[in-house]
Amino acid sequence: MQFHHHGYVSGEPRVQDAAGIGLDRPAGLPDEMDVLIVGSGPAGMLLAAQLSQFPDVSARIIERREGRLVLGQADGIQPRSVETFQAFGFAERIVAEAYNIAYMNFWGPDPENPANIVRTARTEDYAFKISEFPHLIVNQARVLDYFAEAAAHGPGRIVPDYGIEFVGLTLHDQGAYPVEVRVRHTAGERAGEERTIRAKYVVGCDGARSGVREAIGRKHVGGISAHAWGVMDVLVNTDFPDWRTKCAITSQAGAILHIPREGGYLSRMYIDLGAVAEDDDHRVRQTPIEEIIRRANAILHPYSIDVKQVAWHSVYEVGHRVTDKFDDVDPGEAHDPRVFLTGDACHTHSAKAGQGMNVSMQDGFNLGWKLGHVLTGLSDPALLATYSAERQPVAQQLIDFDKEWSALMARKPEEITDPQDLATYYLATAEFPSGFMTQYGRSAVVADAAHQALAEGFPLGKRFKSVEVVRVCDGNVVHLGHHAKADGRWRVYAFADAAPAGEQSALTSWAEWMASDDAPIARHTPAGADIDAVFDVKAIYQQPYDAIEVTQAPNLFLPKTGPLGLTDWEKVYAAGPSAWSTADIFAERGLSRDGVVVVVRPDQYVAAVLPLTATDELADFFAGALRDQRAAMADAS
Amino acid sequence: MQFHHHGYVSGEPRVQDAAGIGLDRPAGLPDEMDVLIVGSGPAGMLLAAQLSQFPDVSARIIERREGRLVLGQADGIQPRSVETFQAFGFAERIVAEAYNIAYMNFWGPDPENPANIVRTARTEDYAFKISEFPHLIVNQARVLDYFAEAAAHGPGRIVPDYGIEFVGLTLHDQGAYPVEVRVRHTAGERAGEERTIRAKYVVGCDGARSGVREAIGRKHVGGISAHAWGVMDVLVNTDFPDWRTKCAITSQAGAILHIPREGGYLSRMYIDLGAVAEDDDHRVRQTPIEEIIRRANAILHPYSIDVKQVAWHSVYEVGHRVTDKFDDVDPGEAHDPRVFLTGDACHTHSAKAGQGMNVSMQDGFNLGWKLGHVLTGLSDPALLATYSAERQPVAQQLIDFDKEWSALMARKPEEITDPQDLATYYLATAEFPSGFMTQYGRSAVVADAAHQALAEGFPLGKRFKSVEVVRVCDGNVVHLGHHAKADGRWRVYAFADAAPAGEQSALTSWAEWMASDDAPIARHTPAGADIDAVFDVKAIYQQPYDAIEVTQAPNLFLPKTGPLGLTDWEKVYAAGPSAWSTADIFAERGLSRDGVVVVVRPDQYVAAVLPLTATDELADFFAGALRDQRAAMADAS
Repeated sequence: MQFHHHGYVSGEPRVQDAAGIGLDRPAGLPDEMDVLIVGSGPAGMLLAAQLSQFPDVSARIIERREGRLVLGQADGIQPRSVETFQAFGFAERIVAEAYNIAYMNFWGPDPENPANIVRTARTEDYAFKISEFPHLIVNQARVLDYFAEAAAHGPGRIVPDYGIEFVGLTLHDQGAYPVEVRVRHTAGERAGEERTIRAKYVVGCDGARSGVREAIGRKHVGGISAHAWGVMDVLVNTDFPDWRTKCAITSQAGAILHIPREGGYLSRMYIDLGAVAEDDDHRVRQTPIEEIIRRANAILHPYSIDVKQVAWHSVYEVGHRVTDKFDDVDPGEAHDPRVFLTGDACHTHSAKAGQGMNVSMQDGFNLGWKLGHVLTGLSDPALLATYSAERQPVAQQLIDFDKEWSALMARKPEEITDPQDLATYYLATAEFPSGFMTQYGRSAVVADAAHQALAEGFPLGKRFKSVEVVRVCDGNVVHLGHHAKADGRWRVYAFADAAPAGEQSALTSWAEWMASDDAPIARHTPAGADIDAVFDVKAIYQQPYDAIEVTQAPNLFLPKTGPLGLTDWEKVYAAGPSAWSTADIFAERGLSRDGVVVVVRPDQYVAAVLPLTATDELADFFAGALRDQRAAMADAS
Repeated sequence: MQFHHHGYVSGEPRVQDAAGIGLDRPAGLPDEMDVLIVGSGPAGMLLAAQLSQFPDVSARIIERREGRLVLGQADGIQPRSVETFQAFGFAERIVAEAYNIAYMNFWGPDPENPANIVRTARTEDYAFKISEFPHLIVNQARVLDYFAEAAAHGPGRIVPDYGIEFVGLTLHDQGAYPVEVRVRHTAGERAGEERTIRAKYVVGCDGARSGVREAIGRKHVGGISAHAWGVMDVLVNTDFPDWRTKCAITSQAGAILHIPREGGYLSRMYIDLGAVAEDDDHRVRQTPIEEIIRRANAILHPYSIDVKQVAWHSVYEVGHRVTDKFDDVDPGEAHDPRVFLTGDACHTHSAKAGQGMNVSMQDGFNLGWKLGHVLTGLSDPALLATYSAERQPVAQQLIDFDKEWSALMARKPEEITDPQDLATYYLATAEFPSGFMTQYGRSAVVADAAHQALAEGFPLGKRFKSVEVVRVCDGNVVHLGHHAKADGRWRVYAFADAAPAGEQSALTSWAEWMASDDAPIARHTPAGADIDAVFDVKAIYQQPYDAIEVTQAPNLFLPKTGPLGLTDWEKVYAAGPSAWSTADIFAERGLSRDGVVVVVRPDQYVAAVLPLTATDELADFFAGALRDQRAAMADAS
C-alpha cells in the first residue's frame, strides 16, 4: 500500500484524497451526469468503486431499496473475485470474515441401506492450489459493503443514491447527454416524485427483471426449466457431521447442495423441490419454509437438522437465459454504445454453481475502466463496443457450465452410474468456476499472439496470473500482480534480459526509448499529468535482489511524481530466489531470458506480449487502444 | 471469526453486540467508575480494548489531548505485538498498511576511503522465521486507532474521554471506590474545570513524566546518558540505495539508525548528535531541524538526501530508567494493589531498539484480564499483585538490552574491531526484540514445571507458540493459537492420546471429568453463564482430519451455547497432515503421544502443562487462580 506520496497522512491510508467531482459532490441526484448506474448489486457497486478512481467523471448509482442490502442473495466468492477484491484493497478483510472452502464432500445413498446417506467422496475444493487466492463464502451484502466503502473512499467519493428507481429511458441522437432517463423517488423527501435526468451513458445493473434491458429492447433468450429449488440460510443443531463442509448430497428423497456460511454456525441449503408441473404457474414459489425443512430432513436421513433460526429463505425455478447483446447497438449500426447491461440483467442461471455474483463483478470490472478511459479522453468511444463483444461469450460459457452442473446435481440416484462422477466433474472444471478461464479475443485492447512464446505463462486475453518477486528497494517478497490496483492504469512489465542493472542491455535500450518523446508514455499521457498517470511501468530483473542496486535501474523505473516530485521506489523487482522465497517468475511463467514486455489492462487481462526490441509494435498497440494526447492538445489549441 | 451465534448478523461482524455498561454508556466522564485509565498510549488503549470485553466493568480512559494522536512517537511493531493484534482482531488490516522488515543492512566506513560509507552486511531481519507474524513499522497513531476501534466495537463500547488530564490522587483505606482522583478538563464545554472522581482502580499509562507515578510516590530509577539523538520522519529524494531498507549506518561523522516507514516513501532517521556536555542543561533539545539534516548528510557521505517534507522531528537524550515497583503496594504491606503503572510511566529507554510501544502493550495485556477477572468476581484481588511481579523483571531486561544495543550503535568507527558484530548481536538476540523471550515465574497463574516434559515446546510462563492444525468440522488449516481471541477467557487445550475419536481413551475420561460437577468448569463458571464463558476447551487429535468424525468427539468439545443453544463446531482439531498443510503440532511442539493438557492464560501465556490423568492437579491449579463460584453463590444467598 503506497501513501504519504503527497505529504504525510496521519489517518486511515485507505481513504484517498478527494479530487474532481469528489471535492464537491452533490448530495442529491443531479439532473445531468456522465454515467448513471442503475442498481447497486455486485456489478453496479464494483462499477461505482472503479469510477471513483476517475474523479473527473460524474457517476451516480441509483437503487430502488432505501438502504444497503441486508439479507439473502448470492454468497459464493471465486478466487478471481478475491483477486479482484485485492485490486480494490479489501481482500484481507473479507478473507478474515468469510468461510474458506477447503473441501467439498459428496454424499449418496448407502449401497447397503439406500434409505440412508453415506459420504461417498471427500475432495479438495476445486480452487486447491489454483491461485494464491481462496474460494470463499460470504454474504453478498458484505461484498457490497466493501465496494461501497471503496467507492466512498476513492477520490470521486461516490455513494449510492438509495430510494430511486429506474422507470424508463429514451436515446437521443444528439447532445452532450444523449440518454434521457425517467426515474422515480421511492423514499425520502421526494418520495413519489418522477423526474427526467440525462446521462452520457447508462448501465443496467438492475437484475433479472431489468428495466434497462426492456427499455433498449434487448431480448433475454432462454427458458425456465421445470425444476424448483428451495434455499434457506439457517442456524441449526444437527448430528450431520458435514454441517460445516460444502457438500453435494444425493438421496432417494432428492438432492441438497450444502454451503457453510461465514461465522461458524450458519449454513445455506439448496434443496431439490423436484419437477414442476407445466401448469404450475409459479405456485411452487409459495412452498412454505416448513415444507423445505421437511424435505431437507428427508434427504439427510438418517441425520436430521433441528432449525433454531431461519435467517432467510426463498424458492426459485432454474432459468438459463442470455441476452442477445449487452449494449444498445444493433448489428450493422454505426454508432457507439450508450447503454450497457451487466450481471443478471443479461445472464441468469441457477445459483448452485456459485457463479452469478462473480461473473457480474467481472462484467463491471470490464466496463468500468473503459467508461473511465472514454470519459476522460484517454480512449475513443469505439472502445466501448468491446464490452459486449468480450462479455457476452463469457455469459454463454457460464450458462453452458451451469446447465451441465445443474443437471448433474438434479439426477435421481438410479441415474447415477458412478458415485464419483460429480466429484470428478467438479475438479476437472476447476479453472472455469474459479473464474480464470475467461480469455478475451483479439481486439483494440488485446494484441495478436505472434510473440506469445516469449511468455507462455501469460496467455493473451487471460488475466495476469501473479507470481512472487522480490521488491529490490527493501527485499520484501511481494506478488507482482498485487501491485496492480484497480486504479484504471495500464501495467507494462519489462522483464529484463540477462545483463545486470547498471549495464547496457536490451532493457536499458527499451527504457530509453520508452522515456522518449515518440513512445507511448509521451503520446498517451495527458499534458501535465504524472509520468505514471496512465502507464505503470515496472522492471523485473533475472538476478537475485542483492545483485541489484535499485538506484542503478534506468530512471524510467524510478519516476519522480506527485506534488513533491518524490521517487517511487516500487517499480524495480528481482526474480531470483531470496531467503524469503524460492519463486522465479521467469521459470514459473516461461519467460524469455532475452527479456519480454507484457502489457496488462486496467482490469488485469494480458493485452500484449512483445520482445524488448519490438518498440514499433508496442507503440502501434497503444495507438490502437488510446488516443494521442498531443493530437488532442493540438486540436484543442 | 465466529458470529451469527446469537442469530443472523447482517452488517460488520467485527462490531460485537453491546452489553452491560456498553448498553447505556454515559457520554461524559462519570463521578465513579471501576477502572480509570490515565493516558491513551499503547498500554492504555490496549487496556481499554481488553476491558471492553468485560462489559460489566465500568472503565474510562482519560487523555489530556483533545483528540487522537496525529504524529510522531513510536513505530516499531515486533512479531509478538502483531500476534497480539491478531487476538484483538485487526492484524490483517495493520499488516496490509505497514512496512514489513525483510532485511536489516549495515553500513560502515569504506576501508579504502573512510570518508565514504559502504554496505558491510545484509542480514535477514531478526524476525526471520521466528514466528508466523512479521516485524512491522507503522506509526503509533495507527496502532492506537485500531485499539480504539476494538474498544468501541467491543460489548463495553469504551471510547476515550479526550481533553481531560490527571491532576493527582489520594488513596483511601475504605469504601467501594477507594481511589480519589483529581482531574482537570482541558477542552470542551467544561474546559478549565477541576473535578474529583472516584475509582476502584487507577492505571497510570501517562508516559515518562507520569503524574500517577509521582502521586503514589514511586521512584523512576536510572539516569540520562550524555548522548543525544535527533529523530525525523522525512520525505526525500536520495541516491542512497537503502532508503527503503532498515539500516544501521556508522561513519566517521556519526551514526544513523534508518527505519523505512509505511506507505513506500517516508523514512525515519535516528541521527547521532554526539556527546552532550555535562552543563548542557538540555540545550541539545533545541537543535534545529536544519542541523539534524546536515548531520544526516555528513554521515551518509557520499550519498545525500534532498528533504522534500519533514513530517515530524524531535531531539532526545537517551535515558534508562525503571520504576522501583509497578503498583502502589510497598514491600511488606498487606493490602491489594489499587494503582498500577504501565509503559513509559515505569520504564524508559532509547527508541532505537524499537521496543517501547511493544513492551507497553504487553504491560496492558498482562493487567487487563486480571482487572477484568477481579472486577467480575472471577478471581480474588490478590491476583493483581502478579502484575508488578511479572512485568517489572521484563522492564529490567528491556533496559539491559537497550543499553547494550545503544552502546553498540553509538560507537565510533575506531572502536569497532569487527564490522559484522552489530549484525551478529542483532541476530543472536532475536527472541528478545521479537517479544518472545518473556517468561513469567511460578505464581497463582503459572503452575510448576513438573510435567513440562510432556510439552517441551510450550514452556511454562512463555507465550503459547501457535502451530497449524486442521479444524475437523470443515478441513480448514488454521493456527490453533489464533482462535484465542483477547476475550478474557482461559484456553484449555486437551491434546489427545492415540485412540481415535469415538473410542474410550484418556481423552474421553478427561472430558467426562471436565464436564462433571467437581471440575473447574462447574466450579469457576458463574451461574447462568454459558459453559464456555470462562474456559474455552478444545481437543486436538493426533489423527488426520479425515480419520475423525467431529460428531464423535465428547460433548464437552461440542458445547451448545448462546440464546439459541447452538453447537460450537470450532473446538475439535486434528494434528495429522492434510492436502493443505504438513504441520504436526505433536511433533513440532514435542507433545506426549499419551496426551497432555495445556492451559493458556487470557493473555496467551502458558499457565499449566499436565497429563490427561492429573485431574486433581488441574482442579488445584484453577482453584488457586479463580474463585469458587458455587461458594460465592452460597455466600450471596
